[in-house]
Amino acid sequence: VGQAPAVSIEEKVPWLVGASRRMRWLAGVSGGADSVALLHLLHGAGFRDVVVCHLDHGLRGRASAGDAKFVEKLAAQLGYRAEIGREDVKGLMKAGGASLETAARQARHGFFAECSRRHRCRRLLLAHHLDDQAETVLWNLLRGSHGLKGMRERRELGMGAVAMEIFRPLLTVRHEELVGWLKERGLGWREDASNAEPLAVRNRLRNEALPLLAEITGRDVAGALAKGAADALEQEEVVAWALRVARVCDPQGRLHVAVLRGLPGALQRAAVAEFLKAAGVGDLRRGLMDEALGLLLPDAPPAVNLPGGGWLRRRAGRIFLQEGKRGRY
Amino acid sequence: VGQAPAVSIEEKVPWLVGASRRMRWLAGVSGGADSVALLHLLHGAGFRDVVVCHLDHGLRGRASAGDAKFVEKLAAQLGYRAEIGREDVKGLMKAGGASLETAARQARHGFFAECSRRHRCRRLLLAHHLDDQAETVLWNLLRGSHGLKGMRERRELGMGAVAMEIFRPLLTVRHEELVGWLKERGLGWREDASNAEPLAVRNRLRNEALPLLAEITGRDVAGALAKGAADALEQEEVVAWALRVARVCDPQGRLHVAVLRGLPGALQRAAVAEFLKAAGVGDLRRGLMDEALGLLLPDAPPAVNLPGGGWLRRRAGRIFLQEGKRGRY
Repeated sequence: VGQAPAVSIEEKVPWLVGASRRMRWLAGVSGGADSVALLHLLHGAGFRDVVVCHLDHGLRGRASAGDAKFVEKLAAQLGYRAEIGREDVKGLMKAGGASLETAARQARHGFFAECSRRHRCRRLLLAHHLDDQAETVLWNLLRGSHGLKGMRERRELGMGAVAMEIFRPLLTVRHEELVGWLKERGLGWREDASNAEPLAVRNRLRNEALPLLAEITGRDVAGALAKGAADALEQEEVVAWALRVARVCDPQGRLHVAVLRGLPGALQRAAVAEFLKAAGVGDLRRGLMDEALGLLLPDAPPAVNLPGGGWLRRRAGRIFLQEGKRGRY
Repeated sequence: VGQAPAVSIEEKVPWLVGASRRMRWLAGVSGGADSVALLHLLHGAGFRDVVVCHLDHGLRGRASAGDAKFVEKLAAQLGYRAEIGREDVKGLMKAGGASLETAARQARHGFFAECSRRHRCRRLLLAHHLDDQAETVLWNLLRGSHGLKGMRERRELGMGAVAMEIFRPLLTVRHEELVGWLKERGLGWREDASNAEPLAVRNRLRNEALPLLAEITGRDVAGALAKGAADALEQEEVVAWALRVARVCDPQGRLHVAVLRGLPGALQRAAVAEFLKAAGVGDLRRGLMDEALGLLLPDAPPAVNLPGGGWLRRRAGRIFLQEGKRGRY
């Protein structure tokens, strides 16, 4: 068995081949190596109508303006249009009382929504890569999210009033590979531009925790975490399949208590969560879920108050929603 | 909402109430705080017939002998019998060519198996706690195991020729709680005795990585990792349930290709893995699994070589085992 042949980035990103080159795409470009590589990859693959979207967070002093100029020039070189926004994120933070990270995210979402309206395009490409994914998985795991949650290659995300479609074609590629790819081609980028976003915890996970874990274990830690996220996505498919097969609802759309009782705990929880989501109950905090699952116990009280009014009620072997006066709670 | 009332260790370990006090139990006791607390908890709960099993690994010089004496005395105080073994683990390592960790594990397994034979008891209690669990989950995750794998509260484990039943009743309790519990009662233990086992990577995960992750995130990292393992166990139940429901085998016990094709990828993999395990194919490395799953593709070659001889073969919409000459590979 010899060494596996090196796989080029283009081969690792089948999205570049499969996606429509003739459609319009928005691309978030900080000017850092990752998003610059994404832009060149798009250009190389023949994408014609890309709108380069760059938000100057105003957090890196004169370097911020330099990043914006670099991105504007790069877009012009590639024959792409550019949208350069500027936002005083620190001022927003002070005015809004949110954290710097939250203010920055809100500013970005507002900016992308504005770009979306102006260019009549809801498709936004972001340059998150495998190391970002590893960091996300670790962070979600450590803050107690259910399972190994990473970013998805494609998802809908509400940004203000606009439902954007986010695409992350580089999730299987390492940062080092992107840097190497740029260097091989003599292409430049703005060092540190990708640190323009204030992500204190995540930056420390990236710069301190992940290297320490790799050193201690001698393993490909980022790869293992990214694989964990992929496995977890597959698990979600199993849950969805099982819920379809289990027929937890009766023909009237009420949850069937006897059927639910015969299911493993994780499926019971998933069934109840899906039922409540479909009914428009948005706030599925753990306490509410536990109360709702309590309806499966024979001795429990037969109704659970829902946030915003109404009840989840058990009667005659079924669980269903009962409308209540709004604003009672 | 006031502060939740403190839950005592006895309440956190329902096993202490549920398990039979009259049966005989083996308990692995290093002399460190965790296993000493376990022993006192057993005694306090009225367990009469506990055999205290201590293996002196011979790795801590004179302190090793001190640990053994401490454990022997403690057992006598509580009215329990003690089995004190001694093994030159460094010598075993040199003779066997294995790592120190492997040699130590083999020595322990041999010792517990010997205790089991002598006392005609296959039930072995170990004092692993929530922080050990967190460390295990992190280590398994980082070395690329499938999902978040922790230790189970109860499992069968082959030790030499003996199939032991391992019980870990303290998995939901923190090390600090056990230390506090001992201190409140003025009970002593051997500092560092639990470090008598050589676990270089795991010790560094415990002493360096987990504290750094907790500091960076400001979260209860050990709790989140242990919760992750519990969630993953629930996911395994979903997979087992789904496999039962999916009826992947025909009445002749062959895998049904059309049924498999309709399942999510993770269920296909689980079904094939279970089929091969039931057929006695032990070595389910990733490459073999990928080849076996390839049989579901219409254009793939219809047979896969199995380690140790024989084939996994697809014919007429079914996948089944075909015996082959042993030792061909």
